[in-house]
Amino acid sequence: MWDRRHVISIDDFSREDIEDVLKNTAKMDEYLEKGNVPELMKGKILATLFFEPSTRTRLSFEAAMQRLGGTVIGFSDPSATSIKKKETTADTVRMAAAYADVIAMRHPYPGAAKLAAQVSSVPILNGGDGSNQHPTQTLLDLYTIKKELGTLDGIKIAMVGDLKYGRTVHSLCTALKLFDATFKFISPEQLRMPDTYKRGLTYEETTELDVSDADVVYVTRIQAERFPDPAEYEKLKGFYVINKKVVSTMKEKSIIMHPLPRVDEIHYEVDSDPRAKYFKQAYYGVPTRMALIAMVMGAI
Amino acid sequence: MWDRRHVISIDDFSREDIEDVLKNTAKMDEYLEKGNVPELMKGKILATLFFEPSTRTRLSFEAAMQRLGGTVIGFSDPSATSIKKKETTADTVRMAAAYADVIAMRHPYPGAAKLAAQVSSVPILNGGDGSNQHPTQTLLDLYTIKKELGTLDGIKIAMVGDLKYGRTVHSLCTALKLFDATFKFISPEQLRMPDTYKRGLTYEETTELDVSDADVVYVTRIQAERFPDPAEYEKLKGFYVINKKVVSTMKEKSIIMHPLPRVDEIHYEVDSDPRAKYFKQAYYGVPTRMALIAMVMGAI
Amino acid sequence: MWDRRHVISIDDFSREDIEDVLKNTAKMDEYLEKGNVPELMKGKILATLFFEPSTRTRLSFEAAMQRLGGTVIGFSDPSATSIKKKETTADTVRMAAAYADVIAMRHPYPGAAKLAAQVSSVPILNGGDGSNQHPTQTLLDLYTIKKELGTLDGIKIAMVGDLKYGRTVHSLCTALKLFDATFKFISPEQLRMPDTYKRGLTYEETTELDVSDADVVYVTRIQAERFPDPAEYEKLKGFYVINKKVVSTMKEKSIIMHPLPRVDEIHYEVDSDPRAKYFKQAYYGVPTRMALIAMVMGAI
Repeated sequence: MWDRRHVISIDDFSREDIEDVLKNTAKMDEYLEKGNVPELMKGKILATLFFEPSTRTRLSFEAAMQRLGGTVIGFSDPSATSIKKKETTADTVRMAAAYADVIAMRHPYPGAAKLAAQVSSVPILNGGDGSNQHPTQTLLDLYTIKKELGTLDGIKIAMVGDLKYGRTVHSLCTALKLFDATFKFISPEQLRMPDTYKRGLTYEETTELDVSDADVVYVTRIQAERFPDPAEYEKLKGFYVINKKVVSTMKEKSIIMHPLPRVDEIHYEVDSDPRAKYFKQAYYGVPTRMALIAMVMGAI
Repeated sequence: MWDRRHVISIDDFSREDIEDVLKNTAKMDEYLEKGNVPELMKGKILATLFFEPSTRTRLSFEAAMQRLGGTVIGFSDPSATSIKKKETTADTVRMAAAYADVIAMRHPYPGAAKLAAQVSSVPILNGGDGSNQHPTQTLLDLYTIKKELGTLDGIKIAMVGDLKYGRTVHSLCTALKLFDATFKFISPEQLRMPDTYKRGLTYEETTELDVSDADVVYVTRIQAERFPDPAEYEKLKGFYVINKKVVSTMKEKSIIMHPLPRVDEIHYEVDSDPRAKYFKQAYYGVPTRMALIAMVMGAI
Repeated sequence: MWDRRHVISIDDFSREDIEDVLKNTAKMDEYLEKGNVPELMKGKILATLFFEPSTRTRLSFEAAMQRLGGTVIGFSDPSATSIKKKETTADTVRMAAAYADVIAMRHPYPGAAKLAAQVSSVPILNGGDGSNQHPTQTLLDLYTIKKELGTLDGIKIAMVGDLKYGRTVHSLCTALKLFDATFKFISPEQLRMPDTYKRGLTYEETTELDVSDADVVYVTRIQAERFPDPAEYEKLKGFYVINKKVVSTMKEKSIIMHPLPRVDEIHYEVDSDPRAKYFKQAYYGVPTRMALIAMVMGAI
């Protein structure tokens, strides 16, 4: 069921699928912790095709493959590729599939990963296709919650910031719906969670930054370019900043997450708070991607 | 004879040399097929010095080295190198030879690989030096023909497209001459095969796209920039396109090859035809380069 | 004492520290020579964070890690990273520390490596922070002298070229002071060694290129942009060139060094002289960085 499977969209994952991945991620996490990772990918090659730069995603895929004893080829920037010669994405993927055993790709255009899966003879792991999907991010987010809070079932998650354009929060809604989460959407009016993602959810919606009742505070960046009027951006951005004062209102057993990179939306003074989990979250990207690689390669 | 040899130009290869490489390539191909490649390059480092980008060539050299258990350092783009500090190519090669055990390089200037061989203490594998030579491409082309048709001797090859500027077809002429091939050169008047490469060959020359008698149809891209008059390019380019209709006239036991990347010159509808071998050809780049690396490193 | 240590500045190194590194470098050098390097870093990952390009330093760190059986992730150019999204260097380092076991970084801003050490959970190896420090270069320079001359104690070193802005020669002064070296500073008036580095040294200072009494001639590049008047640069640069004639005045048992890349300041005719050691010096970068990696990782 997992062997040779493409990982394109979190929408393709059932609750059982997610639980499978989290169980294997926990295993990988433990291997890393103990420093005894089995060389499940020895002799295998991952191709990282990054048609747009994403250091975090690329490096964590590469670390994941290397931790499993495999190696990596690829490109991090389309400007140094045959794309300049107008090769299609499909042909670039076919080429990579001829050289490597599994492909992690990132692309600026929605749907690119699905297209790649149609022409690739090896499994495709979608590392983000434009505004569309970034399933490995969602899975590592889920693992972070599960690991740090002990469960995904029935948690209360507050999502803060740009909920309109944020691919990450959209996918997380889709996934957490399977675990009966309760949602609180905190954003400026202009950046509210679209109706399509709210369907079927138990949620409240507000412009007030009150996170006192949340188990998880998931923060995203508000980008200046979303606002026609710069003054309005300046006014709003300060309002949705997680600082020590905001954190002091949070429950003791709660966590702060962020897909990173952050700019100003979480103050540096928060980094040392034990509830700040965004760097651990980044770390969990490695065992999550190790699990996915090993699963689609039929190694576990 | 092979140990420490530089691979600079196909012109340096005798028929015996080529047969040596093809024999070892077949061995590597079989190892890959069976998934039991010996770690002939364990502990060894390949430096990929790409003074101009070439994703396909670079990735297949890197995959080749990794399949053999070796590792890779290098750069894919001169803009991120000391070249900006005006270091000479010779000094960059000397540096790489101090760090690595074998070097694959690509350079925009004809003769750069030969120069590199003069100063390098480790074997140089030319991955293309401007309009001059790209011997590993020629060797993988030869392996593709041998593997897919069973022999190189006496084949009839039709070369289609830009035969004037195409380094690939020039080198292939030189090599296939050693195997008594018969040639058909199909191109616009402006892009005919230069006389120097036709010397000593059995060939016919035409502007008509008739490939019905060919064992191999080798397609190359016609670049707009070769034509002073854009209208003329537009008129011609459509004429040398391999589509289903053209393929339907081909012999049943024949193959279509292309060095890739392609743009429009082979229609996508042809990809599923069993005679379309251009992606297998890309794949064969890996065992070919594995063989060459192992040979110049004295490992086989 | 070495386990988990950050390597930020040569100023932090005692004579004993330097001797430790040189002893371990000699061991690594011998392993490389014999081709039996122990896999001390098997399963470990080095992150190379190059916020500005430096091919030589990056490739030699990567070769060092790979020679020890470890693997590498990283970036060679900030333009293809999240820095474009305004992520702070501190956050980029925290991310890399989540994925890798040790970090080698280069940064255009002085102090960046120290900042990185403050936030990183894994050892930082400074690969150059602007005009400030480049300790692995200094250590490989010291190893070169020790290996080629047999000792560091009481040597006479002539430093030639731009002594005002050259980070390399400044650090070498600091380090060699611990070994009672004698210095000769040879430069144009405008590019004299700053007083702060001369403090406590036994030295002479001159504009004349007389290197007849030196054990080590350490050459650096004079950059045109240091001179407001281009004509003055043109006049001076030819004066500080090491050519065959200059070399003929040198002691028989002496060596010529250069941190590379060179442009014109050492003539190519000198390369074949047995005293020309700048390419061996580049080579020694590998065992030096192997030693440092193994030491801060607690593997030796």
